[in-house]
Amino acid sequence: MKLMRCRHDGQDALGVMRNDGVVDVTGVTVDFSDALSPEGLAAIRAHAESAPASHKLDEIEALLPLWPGARVFCVGQNYVGHIEEMDYEIPDFPAIFMRTHASFAPHGADIIKPNASDQYDYEAELTAVIGRPARHVAEADALDYLAGYTIMNEGSVRDWQRRGPQVTPGKNFDRSGAIGPCIATTDDIPDPAALTMETRINGETRQSTRTDDMVFSIPYLISYISTFCGLLPGDMISTGSPSGSAAGFTPPQWLVPGDLVEMEITHIGVLRNWVAAE
Amino acid sequence: MKLMRCRHDGQDALGVMRNDGVVDVTGVTVDFSDALSPEGLAAIRAHAESAPASHKLDEIEALLPLWPGARVFCVGQNYVGHIEEMDYEIPDFPAIFMRTHASFAPHGADIIKPNASDQYDYEAELTAVIGRPARHVAEADALDYLAGYTIMNEGSVRDWQRRGPQVTPGKNFDRSGAIGPCIATTDDIPDPAALTMETRINGETRQSTRTDDMVFSIPYLISYISTFCGLLPGDMISTGSPSGSAAGFTPPQWLVPGDLVEMEITHIGVLRNWVAAE
Repeated sequence: MKLMRCRHDGQDALGVMRNDGVVDVTGVTVDFSDALSPEGLAAIRAHAESAPASHKLDEIEALLPLWPGARVFCVGQNYVGHIEEMDYEIPDFPAIFMRTHASFAPHGADIIKPNASDQYDYEAELTAVIGRPARHVAEADALDYLAGYTIMNEGSVRDWQRRGPQVTPGKNFDRSGAIGPCIATTDDIPDPAALTMETRINGETRQSTRTDDMVFSIPYLISYISTFCGLLPGDMISTGSPSGSAAGFTPPQWLVPGDLVEMEITHIGVLRNWVAAE
Repeated sequence: MKLMRCRHDGQDALGVMRNDGVVDVTGVTVDFSDALSPEGLAAIRAHAESAPASHKLDEIEALLPLWPGARVFCVGQNYVGHIEEMDYEIPDFPAIFMRTHASFAPHGADIIKPNASDQYDYEAELTAVIGRPARHVAEADALDYLAGYTIMNEGSVRDWQRRGPQVTPGKNFDRSGAIGPCIATTDDIPDPAALTMETRINGETRQSTRTDDMVFSIPYLISYISTFCGLLPGDMISTGSPSGSAAGFTPPQWLVPGDLVEMEITHIGVLRNWVAAE
């Protein structure tokens, strides 16, 4: 099942994306955070199974699949190929930083190349979405705490990212990244390491990988983060990007206004954004 | 004026802290974020001037002075003395990372020494609170965008902080830090570099500094962060800690359950917390 936050006729809604359109499931659960719990997902699934589509896909506007209090943890340097192209070393522990909600645009909207830099880069990432409270979770049980998976363009401003060891500024330019289009629930994705992920810039494939090339697996990352932080429904863990980012080319293939960025992951869909000038 | 979020008889409230008690100003502005705008602060000031205290100070429970969507940006390695004790180098750019709301306890509550580490440290920090939207702000104008200042214990778990270059995990253990007791408005603090800041552990002074020992000033930090992020009312920028943290002693003087942590900054007050075991 593909869950999405969307807007229709000026109203924010929760929807289930199907081939024939979107089923409006607003009100089936208390709120978006509640919708991600096992019980919430079961109620939504039961409702959506028998309901006709409420809206055609081209009638709705995607919103960020982010709950207001959700934390967005990102893991850097987690694909062997990307570590090699960026001249990093295989880390002993996950390199974790956070991103603000404002650093993301929803599916279908413009992402922004800032005036402050010409080193604007894309990073396709598989992103895990927490479904129930998770603290001190064992790696073997970790996947049970997920509601599903989404796609993140973990858009990065490389020169600002390299201004000292903390990458936060280069990872948090407003609307430099994107998340969406939906959260594909875990019943559709029993093994998150068995997916393929691809980035196309203006139709040209730049990143292409299986999601089993991670240094730290999704169960490990959930367990690790849950050691310091009680994870809550809606929290996201983005799991790093493979080789093929703009910085990995000689010369670098930075994004410029007008570029079309498409990121596709098996069973989730395509996250599509256009680059606009600030 | 000292603005605080507090709880009385099970109700969350917005209050003005005075020597004779707290004036309840809930409802004078739309919400806490709105309260921090120049207009909101003026309305609250006018109301509180003529009103009697609603509650005695010992009748209320302090809450975190954090608005649900507020971002908490922290600056590491910003005091020359702390840079020396930690064997860091003076950085070319601010080292910025983020903290979750859950990583903080309010004034008067327990802070938590995690089971995962014995290297639990305190860091007193002067924290600027944004009052109106700030994007691409010049350093000369930056202080105009502040509502006021508060105190942060930017509590850190040192071994987890040093697991690779990104400090996020060691800076985000749940309830490892604290913020409060109030936001002292800018009319009380015309120059944030002219304050004194002190940390006492069980009554013994450990950190003591003037706030003019920063590598990057508060106006510089507001300007710098506003280049990548449109700052909003309630967002916080914590400005680094001086020398005297537990890690700076030989042997280190780590916090243990039962310790009383008091942090005092001129014109703001005392942030007081007890260390509890996880």
